[in-house]
Amino acid sequence: MEFLQQSFSVKFDYKVYFTTHLFDRANDTLSSFLKERMEEGTIQKVLFVLDQGVDEAHPGLKQGIQDYFETVDNIHLILETLVVPGGEEAKNDESLLYQVIDAVNAHGIDRHSYLVAIGGGAVLDMVGYAAAISHRGVRHIRIPTTVLSQNDSGVGVKNGVNFYRKKNFLGTFAPPVAVFNDYHFLTTLSDLDWRSGMSEAVKVALIKDASFFDWIEHNATMLAARDMGAMKYLVKRCAALHLDHIAGKDPFETGSSRPLDFGHWSAHKLEALADFSIRHGEAVAIGIALDTVYSMLTKRLSEADARRILVVLQNLGFPLQHPLLKFEEGNSPLLDGLSEFREHLGGKLTIMLLIAIGTGEEVHEMNEKLIRESSEWLERYAHEQTIRL
Amino acid sequence: MEFLQQSFSVKFDYKVYFTTHLFDRANDTLSSFLKERMEEGTIQKVLFVLDQGVDEAHPGLKQGIQDYFETVDNIHLILETLVVPGGEEAKNDESLLYQVIDAVNAHGIDRHSYLVAIGGGAVLDMVGYAAAISHRGVRHIRIPTTVLSQNDSGVGVKNGVNFYRKKNFLGTFAPPVAVFNDYHFLTTLSDLDWRSGMSEAVKVALIKDASFFDWIEHNATMLAARDMGAMKYLVKRCAALHLDHIAGKDPFETGSSRPLDFGHWSAHKLEALADFSIRHGEAVAIGIALDTVYSMLTKRLSEADARRILVVLQNLGFPLQHPLLKFEEGNSPLLDGLSEFREHLGGKLTIMLLIAIGTGEEVHEMNEKLIRESSEWLERYAHEQTIRL
Repeated sequence: MEFLQQSFSVKFDYKVYFTTHLFDRANDTLSSFLKERMEEGTIQKVLFVLDQGVDEAHPGLKQGIQDYFETVDNIHLILETLVVPGGEEAKNDESLLYQVIDAVNAHGIDRHSYLVAIGGGAVLDMVGYAAAISHRGVRHIRIPTTVLSQNDSGVGVKNGVNFYRKKNFLGTFAPPVAVFNDYHFLTTLSDLDWRSGMSEAVKVALIKDASFFDWIEHNATMLAARDMGAMKYLVKRCAALHLDHIAGKDPFETGSSRPLDFGHWSAHKLEALADFSIRHGEAVAIGIALDTVYSMLTKRLSEADARRILVVLQNLGFPLQHPLLKFEEGNSPLLDGLSEFREHLGGKLTIMLLIAIGTGEEVHEMNEKLIRESSEWLERYAHEQTIRL
Repeated sequence: MEFLQQSFSVKFDYKVYFTTHLFDRANDTLSSFLKERMEEGTIQKVLFVLDQGVDEAHPGLKQGIQDYFETVDNIHLILETLVVPGGEEAKNDESLLYQVIDAVNAHGIDRHSYLVAIGGGAVLDMVGYAAAISHRGVRHIRIPTTVLSQNDSGVGVKNGVNFYRKKNFLGTFAPPVAVFNDYHFLTTLSDLDWRSGMSEAVKVALIKDASFFDWIEHNATMLAARDMGAMKYLVKRCAALHLDHIAGKDPFETGSSRPLDFGHWSAHKLEALADFSIRHGEAVAIGIALDTVYSMLTKRLSEADARRILVVLQNLGFPLQHPLLKFEEGNSPLLDGLSEFREHLGGKLTIMLLIAIGTGEEVHEMNEKLIRESSEWLERYAHEQTIRL
């Protein structure tokens, strides 16, 4: 057989910065970054896209950005800041994607210029996708503003939009050139958004880092009470675990294994059933609870550990079940979630379960009867708790 | 400054196979490839998209593919083969892209299944883009059918479609999982398509490989007369030089340097001026002629070498000039091509010129007066040739 072998590696490097008040003129985190990457003989442009929720919570932000860039030489700030609706709407409405691409074209953002997104995970995913496909990739900077995006999706390498009502049907793997986590944005989050970002931290602790789980356990009530010191630690530790995971075996996920999707097969189904009215983080907490009990009923995980996990989720303020997933006459829409998850991964069904706090185990099938028993176990557990209160 | 450093490499490997009659049941090039990548517990699907021109020139091909896959176990061939118009139309008409993405969705092509494109460079670019963005990348196989796509674009890592009438405005860098060059497809090409693919071979020889240029020079008349043995050598040598180049410094082109774009700044402009009615390869030949003369007039390249290059282009059957680029009253639309090329690259203008056959040199500006003189020199040259005949 006659062939030529092609083989090469592409190196990706980026920093995830942690700061407060990124656009304070005295804060040189962003300006130093841009200065380091200046290129002789070119004027680099910067175009901002802003999550509407952030715009409303921080009415001075747009002006603050303009003031900040007055101090940065040789960078051309595009004065028109695009504002797009946040949440899943940003990924469902194709016209928003094209609004961003139109602006890239209209303002001549080239492969050496920057497209910056400020917002929650959905806005970052949509703008990141626009950046990845425009001119085969313009430089993309992420400024995540929620707990979830600062500790999870915003620091990673994926982007995407929904299509055919399917989550992330269109998207790419495209690392940003930098991520700037500004803790100040967390102060204006609703309690629901503050809380729901923490389920990914519980998840990554459970599959990778028992001592981080211990820390969350000890600090759960402070975290629930919006203690910023505790939250800063949680965000940074969780981001670090995510970065390590991505840099590990399979950054662009060519295999079927996705350990970080622990608790996600049922969470995805729940989000779809709720027409995305439920937060991703809330759905993940419910998914973690279910797969924790399943791990216990299949004798992988001790009951004591399972109960510790459920208590932590509750102390953080999460519900452990959702009416949409309930079994009735032995059936639940939940069960379809397994085959949909397989299709989503591609290839073989691969589900992460727990054998201990901090240690996961991958399986390639789940027993429907035991899924139902896990759901019923959780119902009894919740009932006992109610009685105790 | 507080930050976490992310750093990882992604390895890309693929083979470019050379064969004849790929879908002959006795030919196991493709079936062996698929068998090697089979995964226990999954049925991988294969969806074909076919260039209409190829479909018309090879009316038995669709049936041939079906017959071939009857011999391949555990692979599910999708019986509906999509047929799309070839040429730049494939990249200009957005509805064709969505037709491919619709089929990916309808047939449940997942990240472990295959989307195969058979056709010229434009169809490969469009289908490759659809593959790259569906589910963040389904496996993409390319079967180039023209000289140009077999020796150049089809073996590389880029895809894209035109948008806002701008060439490749949307696209990604996404290596295929394999390329199958089937020489038999070259037998049905028009003389124009046969010839126009050879200009990229001349180009890559001129900037990288003097001995390959010597070979083309010796075989120019045989190549023009459609000798298949000579063409096989040209395609394979040219593909090898392209693969080496991509695997070199900057596979995903983050810098401003693009040596392979020798002769391309004026070629891009000419294609746009002609509304893509001229073949890319024809435009590149004209671009090579212009930058060869410019290299000579700026004392980089000897006149003897410049004349050798022009003679080779002519012996291959290329015109050296085009009326659309003519200077009138000291001006030509050609001159706008320089700034457009800078925008296309992003960053600093970087143009490759020649200092010898086989050796290029990058410059960051070109002199408009000397561009005009180069154009006029070529006009006199063509005129002298006509008189001599």
